[in-house]
Amino acid sequence: MTRKELINQIKSKQSFLCVGLDTDLDKIPKFLLDYDDPIFEFNKQIINKTKDFSVAYKPNIAFYECLGSKGWESLKKTLDYIPTNCFTIADAKRGDIGNTAARYAKTFFDKSAAGLNFDSITVAPYMGEDSVNPFIKEGEGKWVILLALTSNPGSNDFQQLEDVQGIKTFENVVLKAQKWANPSQLMFVVGATRGKDISNVRALAKENFFLVPGVGAQGGSLDEVVKHGMTSDCGLLINSSRGIIYAGNDEKFAEKAGLEAMKIQNEMSHYLKMYKIV
Amino acid sequence: MTRKELINQIKSKQSFLCVGLDTDLDKIPKFLLDYDDPIFEFNKQIINKTKDFSVAYKPNIAFYECLGSKGWESLKKTLDYIPTNCFTIADAKRGDIGNTAARYAKTFFDKSAAGLNFDSITVAPYMGEDSVNPFIKEGEGKWVILLALTSNPGSNDFQQLEDVQGIKTFENVVLKAQKWANPSQLMFVVGATRGKDISNVRALAKENFFLVPGVGAQGGSLDEVVKHGMTSDCGLLINSSRGIIYAGNDEKFAEKAGLEAMKIQNEMSHYLKMYKIV
Repeated sequence: MTRKELINQIKSKQSFLCVGLDTDLDKIPKFLLDYDDPIFEFNKQIINKTKDFSVAYKPNIAFYECLGSKGWESLKKTLDYIPTNCFTIADAKRGDIGNTAARYAKTFFDKSAAGLNFDSITVAPYMGEDSVNPFIKEGEGKWVILLALTSNPGSNDFQQLEDVQGIKTFENVVLKAQKWANPSQLMFVVGATRGKDISNVRALAKENFFLVPGVGAQGGSLDEVVKHGMTSDCGLLINSSRGIIYAGNDEKFAEKAGLEAMKIQNEMSHYLKMYKIV
Repeated sequence: MTRKELINQIKSKQSFLCVGLDTDLDKIPKFLLDYDDPIFEFNKQIINKTKDFSVAYKPNIAFYECLGSKGWESLKKTLDYIPTNCFTIADAKRGDIGNTAARYAKTFFDKSAAGLNFDSITVAPYMGEDSVNPFIKEGEGKWVILLALTSNPGSNDFQQLEDVQGIKTFENVVLKAQKWANPSQLMFVVGATRGKDISNVRALAKENFFLVPGVGAQGGSLDEVVKHGMTSDCGLLINSSRGIIYAGNDEKFAEKAGLEAMKIQNEMSHYLKMYKIV
């Protein structure tokens, strides 16, 4: 999906919500375990009820990999089921040298390889430019979502280290990565727990979309994120996983997820109007 | 495999060689493509001919994932085939928040999940402590091999950034990670292209094993690595992938791989004697 198409979807649905599919056999309603593929069945019903309110879906690859080849099949079926007007994110946090990164690009972007054709993949920056380039080479419509500032406690360990000029590691990531790709193929992961940090990243990356985890369950507020991060193209995808997909735990789990997604979409619509994006 | 068992294997085989299984359908001998599972058949023959000369095997997960669920099956069969006296490394470079890292730990360490029970996994440090802990919690015999200093060009982008005290990011990784795990569960990836950098890391991590890629094909010399990195417990696993597994490309590919491995093992034996480790 191109940048223009993504922006059009955001305007048309009045939403910049991404639904995180961290689908866990231990957490889904018990009655689904009778299905051949409970993971896919859960995702299918969640997608049915949330697709009008969300512009993106983000399967967390760890939750599929931990089921081996069966999990891989559930992932494939899920991806095929996501409507084509939704942006898809492989939350895989890969990062390796060039020839290995090229394999990961093939894995997640090229349907003829592993049966997957995601629009984007999350990538860890530690190994630098050659771990990003192979994904960018896949061309317009294929994206790298590079970890910049995450919202977990460990984000303080290395991301916040300051260099001699007072530039933090996550700021260095944002500055350097923009030399490798333009905003039509490069987003950043920016955690929602610190409004000021979102402002800092926005000052360094005026046009890039940010994928923002940590709103809701992890303590970030939508209001803060919008205030510090929104651009004239919206420039935000806000992810919610557990808050939506586990809103209910009975036969009506999907309806409850849909209601939760609708609630967030209503708020988002309000902000998009306030900032005159729609 | 525990640290003590690993050291015993090194002494007994007089080798600290790790064979990297970056098995690529485009590079293996053509006649193998007639087999049901060419990837596994290749690995099996390579393992047969190299197992007396190597103490570890490191499948590069990207090369299996890019074949989807079929690749996952080849990986499982390969891991089952590796002799139990060899240390196994999932070269996956994962790194995510706690609950996701716990999934990856399950994926690669717990046979009942995805059918895999590696001894160790390579992990990227960008997200900090909570991305490492879930693997350590699996207990003695299960290892994190944390990226510190890699040997690719992009390693200069962030790993070499200096903080206000003149400490580089990769040095900060080595210092902090030692607070999270002891040397019986924590190794570091240290690239072989710069002897001086290996010395620097060894000064900061006196007991940890280093997994060293980049000897041979990528320009590092065994002599340099040993000089700067060896400890009284050896403290080194040196990886060679393409140099060994693609030494030949005909019916005798495995024999050629074995000869290449033997050549390296001979050199290693010399160093182990020189440093009075055996």
